[in-house]
Amino acid sequence: MQPVLDYLKRNQARFVAELCDYLRLPGVSAQEKHKPDLHASAQWLANHCRQAGLVATLRKTEGNPIVIARTPRRRDSRRRQPHFLVYGHYDVQPPDPLELWQSPPFEPRIDGRSLFARGATDNKGQHFAHLKAVEAYLKSGVPLPCDLTFVIEGEEEVGSRHLAKFLKANRAELQCDAVVVSDTGMPDKDHPALTYALRGIIAFEVTIHGPARDLHSGIFGGAVENPAMALSQLLARMRDGKGRVAIPHFYDDVRPLTAYERREFKRLPVAGRDLRRLLGVKRLWGEQGFSAMEQRSARPTFEINGLTSGYQGEGSKTIVPAWARAKITCRLAPGQRPERIRKIVRDYMKKICPPTVRLEMEAGHGAEAYLMPPTGPHARAALAALRMAFHREPVLLREGGSIPIVNEFKKVLGAETLLLGLGLPDDNAHSPNEKFDLDNFENGQRLGAFLWQELSRGEF
Amino acid sequence: MQPVLDYLKRNQARFVAELCDYLRLPGVSAQEKHKPDLHASAQWLANHCRQAGLVATLRKTEGNPIVIARTPRRRDSRRRQPHFLVYGHYDVQPPDPLELWQSPPFEPRIDGRSLFARGATDNKGQHFAHLKAVEAYLKSGVPLPCDLTFVIEGEEEVGSRHLAKFLKANRAELQCDAVVVSDTGMPDKDHPALTYALRGIIAFEVTIHGPARDLHSGIFGGAVENPAMALSQLLARMRDGKGRVAIPHFYDDVRPLTAYERREFKRLPVAGRDLRRLLGVKRLWGEQGFSAMEQRSARPTFEINGLTSGYQGEGSKTIVPAWARAKITCRLAPGQRPERIRKIVRDYMKKICPPTVRLEMEAGHGAEAYLMPPTGPHARAALAALRMAFHREPVLLREGGSIPIVNEFKKVLGAETLLLGLGLPDDNAHSPNEKFDLDNFENGQRLGAFLWQELSRGEF
Repeated sequence: MQPVLDYLKRNQARFVAELCDYLRLPGVSAQEKHKPDLHASAQWLANHCRQAGLVATLRKTEGNPIVIARTPRRRDSRRRQPHFLVYGHYDVQPPDPLELWQSPPFEPRIDGRSLFARGATDNKGQHFAHLKAVEAYLKSGVPLPCDLTFVIEGEEEVGSRHLAKFLKANRAELQCDAVVVSDTGMPDKDHPALTYALRGIIAFEVTIHGPARDLHSGIFGGAVENPAMALSQLLARMRDGKGRVAIPHFYDDVRPLTAYERREFKRLPVAGRDLRRLLGVKRLWGEQGFSAMEQRSARPTFEINGLTSGYQGEGSKTIVPAWARAKITCRLAPGQRPERIRKIVRDYMKKICPPTVRLEMEAGHGAEAYLMPPTGPHARAALAALRMAFHREPVLLREGGSIPIVNEFKKVLGAETLLLGLGLPDDNAHSPNEKFDLDNFENGQRLGAFLWQELSRGEF
Repeated sequence: MQPVLDYLKRNQARFVAELCDYLRLPGVSAQEKHKPDLHASAQWLANHCRQAGLVATLRKTEGNPIVIARTPRRRDSRRRQPHFLVYGHYDVQPPDPLELWQSPPFEPRIDGRSLFARGATDNKGQHFAHLKAVEAYLKSGVPLPCDLTFVIEGEEEVGSRHLAKFLKANRAELQCDAVVVSDTGMPDKDHPALTYALRGIIAFEVTIHGPARDLHSGIFGGAVENPAMALSQLLARMRDGKGRVAIPHFYDDVRPLTAYERREFKRLPVAGRDLRRLLGVKRLWGEQGFSAMEQRSARPTFEINGLTSGYQGEGSKTIVPAWARAKITCRLAPGQRPERIRKIVRDYMKKICPPTVRLEMEAGHGAEAYLMPPTGPHARAALAALRMAFHREPVLLREGGSIPIVNEFKKVLGAETLLLGLGLPDDNAHSPNEKFDLDNFENGQRLGAFLWQELSRGEF
């Protein structure tokens, strides 16, 4: 093992420079214009995997290509080794609002131990750490105790539209003992974490259509419904005064938190004051009866992600807008099925929408929540590797984000997913000034080095 | 008089071409980048007034210049003639949304008897008709029975910020017997109208500030207030289920409609079906207990003109937005004072805004409503001129739009304003595909020709 750790130590400066090259590619999957950048990102990554000693190919899908990179077949071994997948994504969130970035989102900037760029923590930096750990094995000649396949896709930020189909079509090749994903976070730098649950998600757009065109509010205002007001009144009724989603039957299938889980939550090192400071708010808000950690990781939500209507430029424009639109995502708790939640939201909105306007709903992506038992052999191996890599006692986490594909790994490959996140709460994922912590980058590589030893120990 | 009418008839084609030249100047007063276009518009207009035989000057203000153009002093007259002002504005509304225009907003297009361009009906075409009537007098040698001064400003669409000060500073020069404004409308082409009342207005922006930056809705959603939801819930409470503004004391000072006025409203030739078709809605909406005509011209409103929050691009972005903003205007009825309404709106919003977010209100322009008795000598003269110009029986109207400066003419110059609008309900003022009817352009010129005779008859 020591040559692996030495190799990692010796090559940090080069690794950071390579990660910066990777971060310069603006692979925004939500925006059509970035299609060429996504292909360039996949190409760059595949080339880089080859340089690291892996056998890498770009695999076509109906969307962006998937990079598959596996460790070379060993000539001397007839015994089947365990096989693990490492999943990540090379696509990134849109960088808007651009004016809030202190440096351009696709021109990486290092300040102390922080590397700023869109995609730094979500997810390029995190899967790059695993790639470097494997490079260390392959280049230092220490034999890996397992086979590894990297599956790095380009559509995670738009719902992993084509990955499930790909998994099904390549089931034999991807059959594995477990999947490792570093795309979640740690509560702070001193608490490495294994995440055992994720929230699900449904995304949709609601548009309220009113008059055929924007109208002069002086000439017509008062005799025609204002779509922006109708939308506001519709959205207002989606939440009650106790911070709960007010859509009937929304909570019906939510699996309640166990007493054990609520105790574990209390052990986590997050104070309300720190959270308020981190978010820049004077008061937190949330569903009554749950702690902030529970609210943001274990409870479902109804979140408005964007509002658009009428005139948004300088000054004022005295119109009744023709339409108003909200982009919405609901985070889902384990137990809630995306299609059912989508239906009850649609039915309720249609029911309460006034007859003076027309409601249009467009469905976006969706994913179930994920929950795995945190006490099995894989989890124990992961906790051991975390302990050795970080020299700290790890914690167990639920996380509020969604990694849609984790359920597919379970369904299609029958494999559990170990969520070993390297992100920090102030990494600004999905926000301006996204960053990745370079200590976590290095410890993440060490995690990779130890993880394959620990995971392979119990197998076969 | 006949030479004046003949001159008008003979020169229609040229007049239309000249109006097209005027409409090519994109004088959008709400947008800083159009400053040079506003100056070019004023310059163009002053030159054109000079060619028509008027004495025209550009007068500086702290904002856009005001064009003053007066009839030349008569050498043979020692008797003081009556003096009337003609008010208009050369600035126009922003043309957005551009993609809904069938032809570019600043490239005039003629289709049948419609002239399409931003500013065609609001207000270039309308004051241009008056200018052409005076040109006809001056060029045909028929003596005008009065002195006339055109006051054409460049800030009407942003609240006429500097005109009141200009009127005060030039009170002696502008002292007059009445003001004529063509910036309102007719119920249809067969009903020329004298408008005796206008609604007032207040404009403001409400911004709800939440977290210091856009947040990942998976990592933080559920434990922090969503500003777009807080804004929706705030706005939703501004209106009740009966179509009334739900802000306490909002209606306190509204002067009720008299029985006579409500009878006059019923005479107007507007059917609900026509209005629904015109607006492109299946059902009308409005304050219970009032007709559509009353709702849109005599009753106050709370209108959302624009909504902005979070991500508005293609696809979805899973964030809790840092802020959400609404652009709002309230139309005011006679009796309501803008400053008082602004205060009660602000007080109520502050009162009900939850402590988990911060409310910011920015005040925009404001103007009182206007009401004049429709039975005096000026009104009778105007109705007579309308009858002769259009060969139709005119109607009396209240109009829902705001012409802030009308109250200033009353306050500063002591003069009543005759609102003799040439716009039609389908002119798309403030909307894409704004147009001006060329028959109304011609009849508007004839109106000018008759009006100065009728108005001067009763004076002195």
